[in-house]
Amino acid sequence: MDYPYDQAPGAPIRSGIPEHGRIPKYYAVKAHVSSLIAELGEGGMLPTERDLAERYEVSRETVRQALRELLLEGRLARQGRGTVVAGPKLEQPLSLASYTEGVRRQGRTPGRHLIGLERFPCPEALAVDIGVERGDPVWHLERVLLADDDRVGLESTYVSVARLPDLDTDFEPDSSFYAYLRDRLQIPFGDADERIETVLATPREALLIGTPPALPMLLIHRISRDTAGKPLERVRTLYRGDRFSFTAHLGPQDGC
Amino acid sequence: MDYPYDQAPGAPIRSGIPEHGRIPKYYAVKAHVSSLIAELGEGGMLPTERDLAERYEVSRETVRQALRELLLEGRLARQGRGTVVAGPKLEQPLSLASYTEGVRRQGRTPGRHLIGLERFPCPEALAVDIGVERGDPVWHLERVLLADDDRVGLESTYVSVARLPDLDTDFEPDSSFYAYLRDRLQIPFGDADERIETVLATPREALLIGTPPALPMLLIHRISRDTAGKPLERVRTLYRGDRFSFTAHLGPQDGC
Repeated sequence: MDYPYDQAPGAPIRSGIPEHGRIPKYYAVKAHVSSLIAELGEGGMLPTERDLAERYEVSRETVRQALRELLLEGRLARQGRGTVVAGPKLEQPLSLASYTEGVRRQGRTPGRHLIGLERFPCPEALAVDIGVERGDPVWHLERVLLADDDRVGLESTYVSVARLPDLDTDFEPDSSFYAYLRDRLQIPFGDADERIETVLATPREALLIGTPPALPMLLIHRISRDTAGKPLERVRTLYRGDRFSFTAHLGPQDGC
Repeated sequence: MDYPYDQAPGAPIRSGIPEHGRIPKYYAVKAHVSSLIAELGEGGMLPTERDLAERYEVSRETVRQALRELLLEGRLARQGRGTVVAGPKLEQPLSLASYTEGVRRQGRTPGRHLIGLERFPCPEALAVDIGVERGDPVWHLERVLLADDDRVGLESTYVSVARLPDLDTDFEPDSSFYAYLRDRLQIPFGDADERIETVLATPREALLIGTPPALPMLLIHRISRDTAGKPLERVRTLYRGDRFSFTAHLGPQDGC
């Protein structure tokens, strides 16, 4: 089978071809299907595994491996029993703007689905981050993030109960937590530290978000403070790695 | 087999346990091995697969699946024929500071290994980003990134040949490109746009970086400009997802 040498402009030269020149069979199929994806365009329906196996004269297992990677990378998506060309990843800014604003800016409808809101005594490691003493009551708000009704992420927010005593009665759990802080409690965001990494979804996370197990996810840890520099919240947000990318504008002052 | 309910403080409650309450066997093993990792500490040698299978009364394939995830997540590392507890991920700031500075700040020795430097006519899609016309000559500098002699990433830099005519003779390919621009050519960085996503390594990338194929990677796309706002370079850097995380400080002005 040939390897399609149609290099995307600006991509690394000979991307995918190992130095020793031997291309794994599944990867050659992946390259062919990539061309097909470009031809079909977003929403286009891919031929069946059987058809692809015949077309490229490989086993169905080889086709499956190629499709698996394209699915994990978010270039294909399952639709019913078929496989379609996925749209581009959502580009979420790394900024103090909320999830809501970021998703809206891309013309999608943000949403949230409450998993749970519970209070528990603050463990040592969390206390400093949210500005309470160990053992003080802390809220854990856990929500699935939605974009156009698709589950795309899972967010855990930890805040002091003393600071937000009425969170359980006062706050609409499918609305923006940041809008609640800002508009209802007049607590303005000052600054935040974020750390981003890639992890695999746990079985529970995969189930809640509705992803295949062990899908690579982007995990963002955030610690934020109000304008007086007082610790406000610690957040752990897991985003589907096949659906999200994050953008940052870096200025000359460094730091950000 | 029991599931160790030793919840890391601040982690999502019941992390890993699906809502329906059934825990996949391999995941229970993973949780046990996680506790073991904490006990052993960095550099500690893990028992063999066979020993773990006996200890937890599961098949070796189940142990292997658990270890595979811990390896992909960078919590374990192969060392010779054994498996050891890995150190923490490197935390690289998302900033205009170079790779060199970021790695040094963490007490590691940065390095680079040249894969290739070639010139080619600029394709359409790249031209605007680096401030040249389509067809103008452009450099592609490809290097493996090292930390303490370990291969941890792969970087492709695209710059205009007109702007850096002597790159092939003047520049030491295992040194910092940003130091070269700043100190030798007096080209100061102004600002940059970055986009970060998770992708799977291609066979060639995996071979060059020395990772298992299909390891989740963090891919950073960067477009940067000089202080006059003139396009400078387009960079595509692939970092081992098991070895790197990225940090950002978010200020009140937003944008960054």
